[in-house]
Amino acid sequence: MDWNDFYASRMSRVVASDIRERMKLLAQKDIIHLGGGLPDPAIFPYRAFADASAAILADPVRARTALQYAASEGHAPLREWLVGYMGSIGVPCGIDNILILNGSQQGFDFVGKLLISPGDRVMVEMPSFIGALRAFDIYEPTYVPVPEPGAPRPAEGAKFAYVGPDYRNPTGTTLTRAERLELLDMAAAFDMPILEDGCYEKLRYEGAFIPSVLALDVERSGGIDASRVLYTGTLSKTIAPSLRVGWICGPAPVIRKLTLIKQASDLATSALNQMIALDVVKAHLDTAVATACDVYRERRDSMLAALDEFMPAGVAWTRPGGGLYIWVTLPPQIDGDELARRAIADHNVSTISGSAFYPVDPRRNTLRLSFSMIPSEQAREGIRRLGLTLDEMLKAG
Amino acid sequence: MDWNDFYASRMSRVVASDIRERMKLLAQKDIIHLGGGLPDPAIFPYRAFADASAAILADPVRARTALQYAASEGHAPLREWLVGYMGSIGVPCGIDNILILNGSQQGFDFVGKLLISPGDRVMVEMPSFIGALRAFDIYEPTYVPVPEPGAPRPAEGAKFAYVGPDYRNPTGTTLTRAERLELLDMAAAFDMPILEDGCYEKLRYEGAFIPSVLALDVERSGGIDASRVLYTGTLSKTIAPSLRVGWICGPAPVIRKLTLIKQASDLATSALNQMIALDVVKAHLDTAVATACDVYRERRDSMLAALDEFMPAGVAWTRPGGGLYIWVTLPPQIDGDELARRAIADHNVSTISGSAFYPVDPRRNTLRLSFSMIPSEQAREGIRRLGLTLDEMLKAG
Repeated sequence: MDWNDFYASRMSRVVASDIRERMKLLAQKDIIHLGGGLPDPAIFPYRAFADASAAILADPVRARTALQYAASEGHAPLREWLVGYMGSIGVPCGIDNILILNGSQQGFDFVGKLLISPGDRVMVEMPSFIGALRAFDIYEPTYVPVPEPGAPRPAEGAKFAYVGPDYRNPTGTTLTRAERLELLDMAAAFDMPILEDGCYEKLRYEGAFIPSVLALDVERSGGIDASRVLYTGTLSKTIAPSLRVGWICGPAPVIRKLTLIKQASDLATSALNQMIALDVVKAHLDTAVATACDVYRERRDSMLAALDEFMPAGVAWTRPGGGLYIWVTLPPQIDGDELARRAIADHNVSTISGSAFYPVDPRRNTLRLSFSMIPSEQAREGIRRLGLTLDEMLKAG
Repeated sequence: MDWNDFYASRMSRVVASDIRERMKLLAQKDIIHLGGGLPDPAIFPYRAFADASAAILADPVRARTALQYAASEGHAPLREWLVGYMGSIGVPCGIDNILILNGSQQGFDFVGKLLISPGDRVMVEMPSFIGALRAFDIYEPTYVPVPEPGAPRPAEGAKFAYVGPDYRNPTGTTLTRAERLELLDMAAAFDMPILEDGCYEKLRYEGAFIPSVLALDVERSGGIDASRVLYTGTLSKTIAPSLRVGWICGPAPVIRKLTLIKQASDLATSALNQMIALDVVKAHLDTAVATACDVYRERRDSMLAALDEFMPAGVAWTRPGGGLYIWVTLPPQIDGDELARRAIADHNVSTISGSAFYPVDPRRNTLRLSFSMIPSEQAREGIRRLGLTLDEMLKAG
């Protein structure tokens, strides 16, 4: 039987991610990885995990809850805690505005399921987060760009706009408050929902707090149930990815629809993981955020210093105030794919070409660097090698 | 903004499950629940969970793996273990034939994504497992019945057939070896894939082992990579639901496609949960299965005895050799929905009407009972009350 004859049409868009495939090939070699982007396991709160799971499993009542099916909506005490958390970042809401997800990635899949019919236009930043694009792809949208801040408004809207306002993957750039308001003006003009990816919200290394797009919209619209924004959050960047605990926050009727999707997709997120998550965030979120910010701020600074030292003229890069990524714009004649290939082959340094982050019309002279896992000496050596590769390409013409 | 204007067309099929909504309403009252179907938390291996999580989190190397992103394919040592498990039930395979899922429910969503284009015919047993129907619904199929064992083959095939050959939810019935081979003959005649739901495979209370449809097809086709069958398995019924660890086993090229779907849908299943699952199954699967079978066999027997004692003439029911469910066929003039409503209102006993389990043409004189959570005295009292309700309806005409 040839299974290829049976695949649904949506599968034509589902192809292996170049990044993940490349990471797998490189996993065993002695290479400096500037492409990665995983949180550093050195800062995970191991002790807090061990304490939480031991306490939960030692208590007969909590243990029964922890090992049984959870409600599709999520573990109510965790949702209550998230109500407080969202309130603390300017989003007054209630438990019916929160659905627990297996990480925020699941939110992209669910919003795709909820909103995208084949051929629908979806507005995304270009470049944008690959994980969200891969989730949307399955529902067969057409992609159009979110206008750059300050650029004229496009003639047409879209089914919805997906945005990462805080230090987004892959560029590390942030929208100012005025730019967020401008985005909301555009969404209102087109009567269009916004999906806001809040995953780097807490990884802020300097500068003042900027309210989320959801917070600003709740202020305007008079309450979360009247909002046009859905916000996804995650504990993967602040606590640990393997919890697979994220959430989506938005108008209660939309959360109810998404809960039905959750039920149909995988019934519920693990109760054990949700209970561990709750114990850990209650005791340790502030400390974990402070530690993550200290470690990543220093790594960002080392990588930026190395870029200043080793990049030839004609190269530009972002100076992110948070998050895990730096976006590099190469001289126009340099192809990022080719640079990435040569860097690994000739100088044992891996990077990710920027072209993969564009759903259409890739700018090929771009690279994404991540500093999350790179101590300062390695960053200096890695960027030195990258500069060397680039010099060689520029000399070769 | 009216979000209703934005939902994709597939959402028209996504409606609240009557069962789950009803269960929620009933959660707080003093009622005998014969409808449920959850595994009994009294038999979960709490000690094994506590030992496994403590050991994993106390070991610095394992703890790093446990809290970091897992591979989308799943934790390799768990996949290796599952290769051995599948071998033990007659399916020789390799690690590339196994993808880890968040419970087998996620497999139904993924196979829907992979195979169903809107309007495709999907063959399901009628009645069938509601969770699978809700997962498929999102991809907008048309349902046609799997022929009853021994019935003539239909004129046309379908995109695929979904079957639960072991004590399936909701009927508790099982396909004999000959019936499984007949199913494979039909699938071959239509050149059609089969999705086999293996979730009750280990909950066998008597009788000889019958090879899975996948095992029989691997024998015929000469190897798993040439098979037309995808098999979903779960630890929810034998170990504990809250692990959210299931798997799908099938031809490697199909597993690769499903892995891309996994990546796009939620990146990966929790590494911590997969590692706990592995430690627990290695040490305790045989004991856990034996305990579950002893407890549930006794409960099945009590409920069957109570049905013998209290059901009026004209009522028939299945005598399942495993699983968690008994299917009741009422006299033709009795509506299961009405019986369920009266039983709860007049006699404080909850059941699930069978009509919900038919994607089309419901047989309304049916009920699903579950014995998984019901000790024998409660079963006797619950069934007595159900018989009373039914007597009243029969008398009223």
